[in-house]
Amino acid sequence: MRASSPFLCFLFFLVFSHGAFAQLFGFGGQSAWQSPRSFAGPRGCRFDRLDALNPTQRLRFEAGTVEYYDVHNEMLQCAGVSARRTIIEPRGLFLPQYNNAPSLLYIIQGRGIKGITFPGCPETFQSFQPESEQILTGTAESQSQRIRDEHQKVHRFKQGDIVALPAGVTYWCYNDGDVPLVAIQVFDVSNTANQLEPRQRSFFLAGRHLSGQQTYETGPESYETGPQAYEIEQQAYGAGRQAYEAGVRPIGMAPLRGNNIFNGFDTQLLAEALGVNAELARQLQAQNDPRGEIVFVPGGLRMLRPSRSQEIQQQEFEESMQAQEQFGESWQGPYNVTANGLDENFCTMKIRTNIDRPSRADYYNQRVGRIARVDSQKLPILNLVQMSATRVVLQRNAVITPHWCMNCHCGMYVTQGQGRVQVVNHQGRAVFDGTVRQGQFLLIPQNFAVLKRADPLQGFHWVTFNTNQNAMVSQIAGKLSTFKGMPLQVLMHSYRLSIEQARRLKFSRRNEYTLFTPRSPRTTLLDQ
Amino acid sequence: MRASSPFLCFLFFLVFSHGAFAQLFGFGGQSAWQSPRSFAGPRGCRFDRLDALNPTQRLRFEAGTVEYYDVHNEMLQCAGVSARRTIIEPRGLFLPQYNNAPSLLYIIQGRGIKGITFPGCPETFQSFQPESEQILTGTAESQSQRIRDEHQKVHRFKQGDIVALPAGVTYWCYNDGDVPLVAIQVFDVSNTANQLEPRQRSFFLAGRHLSGQQTYETGPESYETGPQAYEIEQQAYGAGRQAYEAGVRPIGMAPLRGNNIFNGFDTQLLAEALGVNAELARQLQAQNDPRGEIVFVPGGLRMLRPSRSQEIQQQEFEESMQAQEQFGESWQGPYNVTANGLDENFCTMKIRTNIDRPSRADYYNQRVGRIARVDSQKLPILNLVQMSATRVVLQRNAVITPHWCMNCHCGMYVTQGQGRVQVVNHQGRAVFDGTVRQGQFLLIPQNFAVLKRADPLQGFHWVTFNTNQNAMVSQIAGKLSTFKGMPLQVLMHSYRLSIEQARRLKFSRRNEYTLFTPRSPRTTLLDQ
Amino acid sequence: MRASSPFLCFLFFLVFSHGAFAQLFGFGGQSAWQSPRSFAGPRGCRFDRLDALNPTQRLRFEAGTVEYYDVHNEMLQCAGVSARRTIIEPRGLFLPQYNNAPSLLYIIQGRGIKGITFPGCPETFQSFQPESEQILTGTAESQSQRIRDEHQKVHRFKQGDIVALPAGVTYWCYNDGDVPLVAIQVFDVSNTANQLEPRQRSFFLAGRHLSGQQTYETGPESYETGPQAYEIEQQAYGAGRQAYEAGVRPIGMAPLRGNNIFNGFDTQLLAEALGVNAELARQLQAQNDPRGEIVFVPGGLRMLRPSRSQEIQQQEFEESMQAQEQFGESWQGPYNVTANGLDENFCTMKIRTNIDRPSRADYYNQRVGRIARVDSQKLPILNLVQMSATRVVLQRNAVITPHWCMNCHCGMYVTQGQGRVQVVNHQGRAVFDGTVRQGQFLLIPQNFAVLKRADPLQGFHWVTFNTNQNAMVSQIAGKLSTFKGMPLQVLMHSYRLSIEQARRLKFSRRNEYTLFTPRSPRTTLLDQ
Repeated sequence: MRASSPFLCFLFFLVFSHGAFAQLFGFGGQSAWQSPRSFAGPRGCRFDRLDALNPTQRLRFEAGTVEYYDVHNEMLQCAGVSARRTIIEPRGLFLPQYNNAPSLLYIIQGRGIKGITFPGCPETFQSFQPESEQILTGTAESQSQRIRDEHQKVHRFKQGDIVALPAGVTYWCYNDGDVPLVAIQVFDVSNTANQLEPRQRSFFLAGRHLSGQQTYETGPESYETGPQAYEIEQQAYGAGRQAYEAGVRPIGMAPLRGNNIFNGFDTQLLAEALGVNAELARQLQAQNDPRGEIVFVPGGLRMLRPSRSQEIQQQEFEESMQAQEQFGESWQGPYNVTANGLDENFCTMKIRTNIDRPSRADYYNQRVGRIARVDSQKLPILNLVQMSATRVVLQRNAVITPHWCMNCHCGMYVTQGQGRVQVVNHQGRAVFDGTVRQGQFLLIPQNFAVLKRADPLQGFHWVTFNTNQNAMVSQIAGKLSTFKGMPLQVLMHSYRLSIEQARRLKFSRRNEYTLFTPRSPRTTLLDQ
Repeated sequence: MRASSPFLCFLFFLVFSHGAFAQLFGFGGQSAWQSPRSFAGPRGCRFDRLDALNPTQRLRFEAGTVEYYDVHNEMLQCAGVSARRTIIEPRGLFLPQYNNAPSLLYIIQGRGIKGITFPGCPETFQSFQPESEQILTGTAESQSQRIRDEHQKVHRFKQGDIVALPAGVTYWCYNDGDVPLVAIQVFDVSNTANQLEPRQRSFFLAGRHLSGQQTYETGPESYETGPQAYEIEQQAYGAGRQAYEAGVRPIGMAPLRGNNIFNGFDTQLLAEALGVNAELARQLQAQNDPRGEIVFVPGGLRMLRPSRSQEIQQQEFEESMQAQEQFGESWQGPYNVTANGLDENFCTMKIRTNIDRPSRADYYNQRVGRIARVDSQKLPILNLVQMSATRVVLQRNAVITPHWCMNCHCGMYVTQGQGRVQVVNHQGRAVFDGTVRQGQFLLIPQNFAVLKRADPLQGFHWVTFNTNQNAMVSQIAGKLSTFKGMPLQVLMHSYRLSIEQARRLKFSRRNEYTLFTPRSPRTTLLDQ
Repeated sequence: MRASSPFLCFLFFLVFSHGAFAQLFGFGGQSAWQSPRSFAGPRGCRFDRLDALNPTQRLRFEAGTVEYYDVHNEMLQCAGVSARRTIIEPRGLFLPQYNNAPSLLYIIQGRGIKGITFPGCPETFQSFQPESEQILTGTAESQSQRIRDEHQKVHRFKQGDIVALPAGVTYWCYNDGDVPLVAIQVFDVSNTANQLEPRQRSFFLAGRHLSGQQTYETGPESYETGPQAYEIEQQAYGAGRQAYEAGVRPIGMAPLRGNNIFNGFDTQLLAEALGVNAELARQLQAQNDPRGEIVFVPGGLRMLRPSRSQEIQQQEFEESMQAQEQFGESWQGPYNVTANGLDENFCTMKIRTNIDRPSRADYYNQRVGRIARVDSQKLPILNLVQMSATRVVLQRNAVITPHWCMNCHCGMYVTQGQGRVQVVNHQGRAVFDGTVRQGQFLLIPQNFAVLKRADPLQGFHWVTFNTNQNAMVSQIAGKLSTFKGMPLQVLMHSYRLSIEQARRLKFSRRNEYTLFTPRSPRTTLLDQ
């Protein structure tokens, strides 16, 4: 058919042109460049002193810990950003909750599965194999007939993944691996998806939260970093669990916590609305549940685990899909746009992508390091979440060119090693100058210039969370830089340089991108 | 190549249509999911106690009443929502005004016509029939030649209609029916269309507003509900009109009111600008006009009334159009995108749709009730207004599943009957637990969980106004619910249930949608 | 026709897919109509008294002046708008900076070149002609080999141009003309592109700003207007320059100023990051640079100047392009949408358009005046900047019809002459009634009604900056007006007019558009 070729070409043109995909299906937009956000902070917010933050509050539950980066920190409030780190022990289930703000998760360690329930999405996952049957039967009281279960898609994720969570969507999470699952989660509180209030709020669908868990106020010094820290933590969880079981009273109340939402309903009315008896309704209200937000699943959620070979197949399939996306060859998306089109899209939408594997890097140099970005082009759900992320691995002593984010704040979480960071405001004053270590979180405000150098011994690995689905970074030196884009004469007269100096400035890093080789200042560099 | 010509034409059509270029290339647009809104309230807003609001201020005019729901209510301010109810007597003309915020109207009772003047829209309506001629002549002093009038489109509406009004657009309204026209209007003050200030502001093009009308502060008890209330009101209006005519001084000043905008101009300058004499300019300033915002039209606005048969034809045409839209068969829209494309679109755009007729329901069950949604898909002007609405009729004793709005606040106005409502916040605390009655307005904040049950005697009919053009609701039980989307094992371990209990919970309402049959808690329900 | 079926299918697919309909026709979502902005001001902002503002702060630099319109003005803060006027002497270079908010510039006088560096845009401009070679060599110390330079596109602009500057983008500017270059620049601080804080902030890439420049607090009276004012200013600059050279201490510190961003970095670290030696890094930090933000280029930036004939060719080419755009014949845009598609677009995007030439007017009447609008349709980068502008030239005594902006604030800068202006708020009260003179800036809030009349002797020329990429103005009288769109009977009953008066009101200006002929109130005007 002769008509189809330009038509298809046009279709792909639309689908792959930047951001158009999102607009076509109606959940994108508000632009590749700008996120509509309101100023969360009072007018006096000036970002005139930044801190590398440690978690200041730790909540221990039966099978894990949630740690909050200072929720009263003025800078975070000003930026409308909130961060927490969650550690889930093996066979731990993070109980269902939803939040008033969208968020991105980076999986620091481990693997797991995550269920997200979009209203109206079909129950496309089934678990009715005889094998799982028996397991189910084992945990149930007395069932011998076949039990079949259908539910919405369950997403697998593992170390190095970015996972996107829209506001208002219910999610739960389960550690089906052998090591503690550790994730850093950053909420964009000022995102317009949040009309509620300029604070992060979690709405719990299960569990009991007002008491029963221990709260520790942790000073910046008390948190130990490094891989072994999780080991220590892991032992601590065990102790915490024993403490629960022994009925130890909590030391402090968690100010963010509440009961689950069923608690607020009249038990009888709730029973009626759900079509269950009062006893079951009371069970939902969980008034006697001491386990907290993360609970142990004794036998494991085995019915959800595809066989290892299936898993590998799925992995391979997803990767081939991602490769195709990057080369623009094909696109498997919502062709069936129905009256309920929006939901259909969400239902099949990918919520995660890996940014840690070297093969995913946008920039890679064995000696210097690598950078991998994920924006709304690579992961379209980010059009909805209006955030993006960048993974940077900086080898020992390497530097990243001075730069600023043109259209967003960046929250930086150090996953490994440490480095020297300087952040400069509009007055040319350093508002941060110090070392940022593993496990710390540093907010870098929009437009503020940043310079980072990796530690000579440990290197410097981090992930940044950006409050824009297409963060645009302007670099001062290097191949794609501001200096490179300016005429020599403008440089000469701006800085009172000789032409020789101006050329040195402009071309010194001209064949390198964002990351620079350690300690090799080229003092003379002529063209050709 | 034959294919290329329509293709290219379409490409250019896209490229040159207003704003589409931007969306195509990803830096324009905005989203079906999110409304960009700012937080209207101060940071301290917590929505920790909600009230079912009655109108607290009533303004009586010559031919009608405007009632405001507490403009000082902290919850409404926090949510950036403002509500008023307008009652226009037969032959009453609501004088032209425009507002700083978009709004949706729901027509509770009666019928009328509404004129909206978009700048630049053509005067496509003519009234020059000999018949109307004579009527015009009758009201004029001494005219015998043919008078022809052209003006912009006039929209008919009637009970059960949702009418959308963009910010800044001038509109007037006329009751050409036989019963008082009653409408509830909800403004989205925090909508980004409003850059002015976080309060609802009306700009009057006619009338005099500072004095001359009576203001009653009404307590929650003083407002009588039920169909007969309007009868009482109607008599009261009569009394009010007599009071006006007798020159009674107003009891209180309406704090929201001002003079019409012409008052602020120098009379001579105004006359010059309009090309009229000073006397006429003074007439516009209306300094001696005691009628208020709603005035009587002695002879009626007859030239605007198409013959009954024409009217029925138009109605049928519009309905057939709506049916087509729903089935996707055809679409009559702005094919002529000109340099003034934007205006062309607005000019032919539908501003109303009915959501009360049972045939419009998205969900219908004779015994339980019905639900009809109108979003930007059904009524595209809602993309501009960034609001949507839902009509719910709940039969006696029926319940609506616990749910929350994922992306907006909902303002709920009860049109008939009453019901028990519980609203739960993020701490699992009921911030509202009580009865909401006909005529009351309840704000339900984003993410807060709600449960509603109809009164056993009266049923419970309401309309919700959502601060998002595509409100997304997440339900806890029923066919499209959160429980339905979760694996049984997650339910089991979240709530410490046996598998039998989990299945009861998950499948008890599995064949019902949002509304549930009265009082039939199924205590046992097995699969198949 | 075989081509049509997939084409139509695709059309319907687009039209009916969720939300796409809206985006296609440009009124959807975020839209041609609305800019997502937050309220910059505290809740108490009422715009109840406006002032015609003069610059209150003047910063003198080596080769020019920057004047700020009262940055503490409550009305400007409420509206989220900031204005400054920049005067650059011939051969003056405005040093590179970027801002936290987008802005529009109107070139009041002179001509120049502007460089904008978008990250990732290619260096498509070369300067390696032998001629420029010699000039370069002249300014450099000792260079005899051929020097070739490549840099990003440089934009020419001249009197009457609107130039758009996105937030966060580095720009520099050079006066290559013979007269001082004068520009008024308005920032949209509340634009969502700015997540930083609700104030305008400049980040300097060069120069030293904390001291060395003189600050004058100027009262409203002290600023002389008229073409000769710039002459005076020009002499003053000369004096200012001598003062600099003589080492005079600054009188006051500029509160907005800071050092350039390099100052905040550790010199050694900076040198390493840039791959230059410490001496050069120190040079960037400019600690001994007394020149300020605008510096002299002794020999001129000659390599950037195309020959006069080339320039005229380019001009003609651009104009023919603009003409084509307006007639929709062709469009030269981003056909190569790559993985880096967004940047490609920005790279080739036009940032300026002329709105002062009579041939560009949307409305032109030799006797009355002219109006030229530039919105996102004419200049697509405005979709990004989310602002637009209007140029109005009102001849002596002419009036502009009373009107209001439906979807934005308007900042009005008077370029020549003066006029009487009245602004009326929602209470019908004049919040401004006075004369606005050349060089003054008046903020007109959204929805407020405005009436303007040109001075009988001087006429009244101004440019408005609108905080929306498609400002929509509603006019009260004239061909496209509110009165014109309303039925006669509605006018009659709204204002208690006879039919004769209503017709006079409706039709008095019916053949005129926005601008009206001076002093000819037609007291009688009948149809036909």
